[in-house]
Amino acid sequence: MLIDDFIRYRGKLNEIIDKHGNMQTKRFMNLDSEVYKDGAIDSRTKEMMGLVASMVLRCNDCINYHMIRCFQMGVKDEEFFELFNVALVVGGSIVIPHMRKAVDVLQELREKERNGETISF
Amino acid sequence: MLIDDFIRYRGKLNEIIDKHGNMQTKRFMNLDSEVYKDGAIDSRTKEMMGLVASMVLRCNDCINYHMIRCFQMGVKDEEFFELFNVALVVGGSIVIPHMRKAVDVLQELREKERNGETISF
Amino acid sequence: MLIDDFIRYRGKLNEIIDKHGNMQTKRFMNLDSEVYKDGAIDSRTKEMMGLVASMVLRCNDCINYHMIRCFQMGVKDEEFFELFNVALVVGGSIVIPHMRKAVDVLQELREKERNGETISF
Amino acid sequence: MLIDDFIRYRGKLNEIIDKHGNMQTKRFMNLDSEVYKDGAIDSRTKEMMGLVASMVLRCNDCINYHMIRCFQMGVKDEEFFELFNVALVVGGSIVIPHMRKAVDVLQELREKERNGETISF
Amino acid sequence: MLIDDFIRYRGKLNEIIDKHGNMQTKRFMNLDSEVYKDGAIDSRTKEMMGLVASMVLRCNDCINYHMIRCFQMGVKDEEFFELFNVALVVGGSIVIPHMRKAVDVLQELREKERNGETISF
Amino acid sequence: MLIDDFIRYRGKLNEIIDKHGNMQTKRFMNLDSEVYKDGAIDSRTKEMMGLVASMVLRCNDCINYHMIRCFQMGVKDEEFFELFNVALVVGGSIVIPHMRKAVDVLQELREKERNGETISF
Repeated sequence: MLIDDFIRYRGKLNEIIDKHGNMQTKRFMNLDSEVYKDGAIDSRTKEMMGLVASMVLRCNDCINYHMIRCFQMGVKDEEFFELFNVALVVGGSIVIPHMRKAVDVLQELREKERNGETISF
Repeated sequence: MLIDDFIRYRGKLNEIIDKHGNMQTKRFMNLDSEVYKDGAIDSRTKEMMGLVASMVLRCNDCINYHMIRCFQMGVKDEEFFELFNVALVVGGSIVIPHMRKAVDVLQELREKERNGETISF
Repeated sequence: MLIDDFIRYRGKLNEIIDKHGNMQTKRFMNLDSEVYKDGAIDSRTKEMMGLVASMVLRCNDCINYHMIRCFQMGVKDEEFFELFNVALVVGGSIVIPHMRKAVDVLQELREKERNGETISF
Repeated sequence: MLIDDFIRYRGKLNEIIDKHGNMQTKRFMNLDSEVYKDGAIDSRTKEMMGLVASMVLRCNDCINYHMIRCFQMGVKDEEFFELFNVALVVGGSIVIPHMRKAVDVLQELREKERNGETISF
Repeated sequence: MLIDDFIRYRGKLNEIIDKHGNMQTKRFMNLDSEVYKDGAIDSRTKEMMGLVASMVLRCNDCINYHMIRCFQMGVKDEEFFELFNVALVVGGSIVIPHMRKAVDVLQELREKERNGETISF
Repeated sequence: MLIDDFIRYRGKLNEIIDKHGNMQTKRFMNLDSEVYKDGAIDSRTKEMMGLVASMVLRCNDCINYHMIRCFQMGVKDEEFFELFNVALVVGGSIVIPHMRKAVDVLQELREKERNGETISF
């Protein structure tokens, strides 16, 4: 539900932004997806970096986004929890509420996986 | 010089903290090195995550530390610059001055490498 | 709905704060409205500055407040979107979820405008 | 309701984290409760410090937690409001929405107190 | 001296970044100058917005940059101080040290102005 | 030296701000000293709160200021280190470089104490 609500709201508003935003807005949006593409560092690692960054900056929607992307790229639970620890130690106890949300999203993602649901943006 | 000054000051103060700090201080310091150790995610990737986190949080001393650690673990220039881009896009133009410092440190590290100098904490 | 809920909650709690808060609280609150008044810089520009500041600091309630104030002072859609871009580039992709909220609020404000509704604090 | 929802969600997720989290996660969690214990500074003062820190960092869940802890340790309304002012002046007007939430929680806590309800984590 | 040192260091490092950075880095840098150009909002106002954003985010180098840009676009002292107040009230007392730096830079800029010096990036 | 340089620079710039700043600037400055005065919470505790807040917000000049104030009010080393731990755990490893600076300032303060020097703003 966290995930479905997030995807629905994000989709709806991104459409409005796409329609009303100017060229610079679109360029930023493009750049925002380009920097996570495969290169000297693979896309999977970059998404994990994006997740750590989102956690220490305490942005729940950004965490949702990168949790889904990491999940789609096969990041395993053990990896998620080690990554959470890096975020926790770098960012401190104020990261805990966001780790809770991330763990909540992870539970939903694993349930969708068991049910054979696919997640698409 | 950025690097040498950083290592000297860090070493001097860490010693005082080690002497006067209490048990909780030491535990935090230990935890801070433990979370970067090899596990489900390798140490090299974790250090790169620590660097991205330090950049988006705009902490120059943390950037120095993780730049050196990444360098010691063989992170290549192409990787550094892709990683910088993730930080830049996540954290915005306020990250630019910290990217400059990171690039400055990178130049020093490559020079030390060419001169066969070793860096130790 | 975003707007009405915000105004209602804000009003209710500000009343309690006004009743229980001490003199310093009131002084801060006064100062918070004084600095946006016409001066060497006009009030409209200052509200736009307040909006950019709220976006890069990622404070949704502050964004709501300044969106309404800017709307009341006649800021146009093209101006809003250029202002969002400044916030986006300064603050990075973590600002995107807050830009979505701002755009959502903007849609509501334009709808209220079309319906001839007035917004009062 | 703010409080009950917070405690329920926090409890549920902490259980999952306790089950799936690794040793470093647990160590951080332990450290997070240890640093607030009586020492050279008493626990009550430390909880008030934790509350100020949570307010300037604008973390609502952290504010909830420390509001409850401060309440349990007998912090009085006059103290809460002076503490809010320190947070307000240090952190600026972006703290106001979080002060509203804190005041909302305070109202709920006083109501529970009048009803003889106990709050337990 | 603050200004000259800043411009020199910024120029030197930007050159290295321009040489070693990849296409995404350049795109971000371009976008960073594009969003301040004249449009529905004039460039002068956008630079003032950039300055407020830099102050509340407490980025000294960003403050230096936008102070110089605002100065070049004829922002007057009374405007600067009103703008500083918006930043101060939004961001709180932690902005004070950055306001001091901004005022220091302003003094240098006015001196350069009196001496007929031009500032170029 | 950290302390003397800080006090000198702060004094010089505050004078300029006092001269050129407008009424709102002065009001904020006044409020900034008023909220730390004795009340339901004593001034000493409030200064310690201000120090924790400055550490988690990672503002070195604010840390300098509150370290000196706490020192003047007789805060002991054991108290400082417990307070540092609260800041460390709340704010994470990015607080470490600021704790180092705080410890450095503490050493200078104790030396001034031994030499019978007085510190005045």
